[in-house]
Amino acid sequence: MKVALAQLNYIIGDFEGNAAKIIGSIEKAKNAGADLVIFSELSVTGYYPHDLLEKKEFIHKAEETVKKIAASCRGIAAVVGAPRINKNERGKTLFNSAFFLTDGKIHSAHNKTLLPTYDIFDEYRHFEPNRDFGVVEYKGKRIAITICEDLWDEQPTANEFGKNKLYQVSPMEELAKFQPDFVVNISASPFSYNQKNWRKDVLATKAQKYKLPIFYVNQTGAQTELIFDGGSVFIDEQGETVKEMKYFEEDFLVLDTRNIGEKSLQRETDHIEKIHDALVLGIRDYFRKMGFRQATLGLSGGIDSAITAALAVQALGAENVRGLLMPSKYSSDHSVEDARQLAENLGIRSDIIKIHNVVDAFEKELAPLFNGTPPGIAEENIQARARGIYLMALSNKFGHILLNTTNKSECAVGYGTLYGDMNGGLAVLGDVYKSDVFSMARFINRNREIIPENTIIKPPSAELRPDQKDTDSLPDYAILDEILFSFIEQNLSPREIAAKGFDPQMVEKVIRMVNTNEYKRFQAAPILRVSSKAFGFGRKMPLVARY
Amino acid sequence: MKVALAQLNYIIGDFEGNAAKIIGSIEKAKNAGADLVIFSELSVTGYYPHDLLEKKEFIHKAEETVKKIAASCRGIAAVVGAPRINKNERGKTLFNSAFFLTDGKIHSAHNKTLLPTYDIFDEYRHFEPNRDFGVVEYKGKRIAITICEDLWDEQPTANEFGKNKLYQVSPMEELAKFQPDFVVNISASPFSYNQKNWRKDVLATKAQKYKLPIFYVNQTGAQTELIFDGGSVFIDEQGETVKEMKYFEEDFLVLDTRNIGEKSLQRETDHIEKIHDALVLGIRDYFRKMGFRQATLGLSGGIDSAITAALAVQALGAENVRGLLMPSKYSSDHSVEDARQLAENLGIRSDIIKIHNVVDAFEKELAPLFNGTPPGIAEENIQARARGIYLMALSNKFGHILLNTTNKSECAVGYGTLYGDMNGGLAVLGDVYKSDVFSMARFINRNREIIPENTIIKPPSAELRPDQKDTDSLPDYAILDEILFSFIEQNLSPREIAAKGFDPQMVEKVIRMVNTNEYKRFQAAPILRVSSKAFGFGRKMPLVARY
Repeated sequence: MKVALAQLNYIIGDFEGNAAKIIGSIEKAKNAGADLVIFSELSVTGYYPHDLLEKKEFIHKAEETVKKIAASCRGIAAVVGAPRINKNERGKTLFNSAFFLTDGKIHSAHNKTLLPTYDIFDEYRHFEPNRDFGVVEYKGKRIAITICEDLWDEQPTANEFGKNKLYQVSPMEELAKFQPDFVVNISASPFSYNQKNWRKDVLATKAQKYKLPIFYVNQTGAQTELIFDGGSVFIDEQGETVKEMKYFEEDFLVLDTRNIGEKSLQRETDHIEKIHDALVLGIRDYFRKMGFRQATLGLSGGIDSAITAALAVQALGAENVRGLLMPSKYSSDHSVEDARQLAENLGIRSDIIKIHNVVDAFEKELAPLFNGTPPGIAEENIQARARGIYLMALSNKFGHILLNTTNKSECAVGYGTLYGDMNGGLAVLGDVYKSDVFSMARFINRNREIIPENTIIKPPSAELRPDQKDTDSLPDYAILDEILFSFIEQNLSPREIAAKGFDPQMVEKVIRMVNTNEYKRFQAAPILRVSSKAFGFGRKMPLVARY
Repeated sequence: MKVALAQLNYIIGDFEGNAAKIIGSIEKAKNAGADLVIFSELSVTGYYPHDLLEKKEFIHKAEETVKKIAASCRGIAAVVGAPRINKNERGKTLFNSAFFLTDGKIHSAHNKTLLPTYDIFDEYRHFEPNRDFGVVEYKGKRIAITICEDLWDEQPTANEFGKNKLYQVSPMEELAKFQPDFVVNISASPFSYNQKNWRKDVLATKAQKYKLPIFYVNQTGAQTELIFDGGSVFIDEQGETVKEMKYFEEDFLVLDTRNIGEKSLQRETDHIEKIHDALVLGIRDYFRKMGFRQATLGLSGGIDSAITAALAVQALGAENVRGLLMPSKYSSDHSVEDARQLAENLGIRSDIIKIHNVVDAFEKELAPLFNGTPPGIAEENIQARARGIYLMALSNKFGHILLNTTNKSECAVGYGTLYGDMNGGLAVLGDVYKSDVFSMARFINRNREIIPENTIIKPPSAELRPDQKDTDSLPDYAILDEILFSFIEQNLSPREIAAKGFDPQMVEKVIRMVNTNEYKRFQAAPILRVSSKAFGFGRKMPLVARY
């Protein structure tokens, strides 16, 4: 049997566009002589539609689209993902389903059994778990069709009180009873750099355990915060990855099950390159899918804005990125110079606006109310917020999206001004620790200097008061980032973190900063997720709590 | 048997404070001769702790606290709510449990069977459903202990593909087999004005069906967006509500099951009064639980800021509320006058700052970049954002929380400036449609004029350009609000909404405005929830979608 894997980039709710892509790939597969072509999870709607799944009209459009795609399946079969209504005596619910299409119609539907509800997943909110099992018989083969998490039941989670333990059923255990010839898994598995080769290991373990080859199709493309990296694979019954498709882009592959051919894998990349590629895709898709072309951002001469600008240029082209320099009286001379050099290196337009006039105007009007108080956070924030106004003014005037440049370390400890430098339509580095931001600078400069050397080596500073350094109020980033990683990604307690060799008081201080800044993150821009635990909807903390 | 119902207001994660409250009520119940005292769902941790439930240390503190409370239960029994570790061969999960405490120790634990995952609920993310049933035998009575949703299995939801249909088990059906004498239900059921008497009806139906009296204990108090209204009840086996406890405050009641006594219900209130009381509690608890006392807000002379100020005065006292008037060159004379009159009526401090100097300073600096473009949204937003800076400057300087005054109608259609009038730590009216804001003004003025009459009767305007009116770009609020309610609360399709008698093009326009403004709401302040479908975490829409 000839099987095609179609790794595509969908838009949520774009039934016409998604159907056109799918039907195009069905044609392509047919022309290549394929018997079967496989698409990813919820390919018809895009993953994840959230509460659009509560709308009748949305579900009916999905149903109609599946029928339309089925009509194009003649002389070939296809597996597509879509929601499916389950009617019973008590009413209607939805399944997250894989439809097997052939002969111009829906041959059968296969529902997802294991519905993830941890981290960024929320499927129990909308779907009912499958309880019936069966295989498809097609051209003399018995095919076991599974959906994403269905193969992940044996994986532990970072969370001590792990989600997976509550699964009462093992879909593969059930499907194995039907003696399938191979397994299809349609997925929507988002990228995270610390997932490493976890995904391939999970599939290999299942292939070995059941002595069955697996055709695994993931989606690619970014959906707001989530970046799907593709990397679809064919794994043989010994658990070996024989074919691996591209990362962070669409791809298409036809395999002959009688003669799989030579092993063909993608180049190994380190975690910084992976994050880089993920963020470029994240920016590009956010703009494209929102219908925007151009970005504005503030260039401070610092490393975060420099990296953000470089990524934006990769994603959108230099002609679509515009920088604004907004020095204050506390900005050092080299800041402006470094920012200008960066803009020149990137070939982007940059303008300069001085903020002292507006800051003075604010302070003058506030003087009667602030009378007798020492200058402090309130005054520092006025500078950051005046910059925020300039950037939004450009964004509003020219129809650009403002890119936010806050990194994960700052976001964690609340080192940023709400309605000031926290402004933006998309937070590019919000899931990248400062230490990784530095490594990314070296990666970006691997062929020629793009990020000015001085930007990389000077001590980080918000420049909101004379001679301010980040280390005035924060530990060195190397230390800070390890504490934060232990607390956020690893969910360790203060005691466990201190036991790694950190000063317990400093650990307490850092954790208190993380906890007391939930209110800022509540109003933060969407953050491109690249780690196993990003701020955003995968980490839900109560805003008001005493803990 | 004498049973006490303890309706308390908890702080999430405040194990010491919550335990002290609970132990205090156990003492009080014992002094009143009670045999049993009942607290609400997750009373030990506060409802809802979200991902704090993923932290080992948090769970262990909860366990220790339950033991500490148990130690205080001598000569009396208590039911408290807390998470409970379920160890099995595959690892650990959590149950959402009710602990029956007596003789100084934990007598038994009863786990929640039905875990809501719809709207604002997210319990499947953290908990495993119960599969074992049993009753407690205590002082000759057989007690069936249930937790909130456990009694809601027969209720339809607003969502066509309803959550409840997937419940495979009816806890009451199982518990009835043990022939209990009465039912205890410990709840955390948030207020919404359009829930009407739904809660009492649900309980009455269960009481009648199983011919069993129900002791129902809800929590009171606000947890960020969610406002728990209390209203705990005793319902007899005929389904009649015999005792009803206070709304929006703590309360305590002791009943003798042999002689329940006379019917005692709370005064009926209309939906505007309910919303009013809910919002006052919402503000008060947000400040108190965050450790703040004082609020700042902008007073425009319009109705939204006037109502917000009046509610804040109710919640915090006039001495803790401060208004700032920020007229621009487009502000009408009466705006300042109306705002001043309001401040006088409320007895709050107010100051005035003119914004034209800073707006001029911004525009002057931007002139070279804006050269040749006609003035528009960019310039209007500078005004709104300059005001936002002033308000945040006061908030930062004096340690006040800025109250946001946006109403639900504006929030829905994106009629507000991000980083401008959308600023604030808490959005007081974000779940109140403009039509209800008007009704609330009449309610607040029921005894004397607090909201100036002119504020109520003048046509709403953002005053960002000469002679601007809200109706320039929006339909009349009476029409707009009906369309919005149909779309948001009722989840109707454009076609169904137009069928109610609205212009289909206008319906399309309004819905498009709602859908294209997800990006603004993503960064909005937390909104006090008073309806069955508020913006916030109970309504999860993809930010980037084509639908």
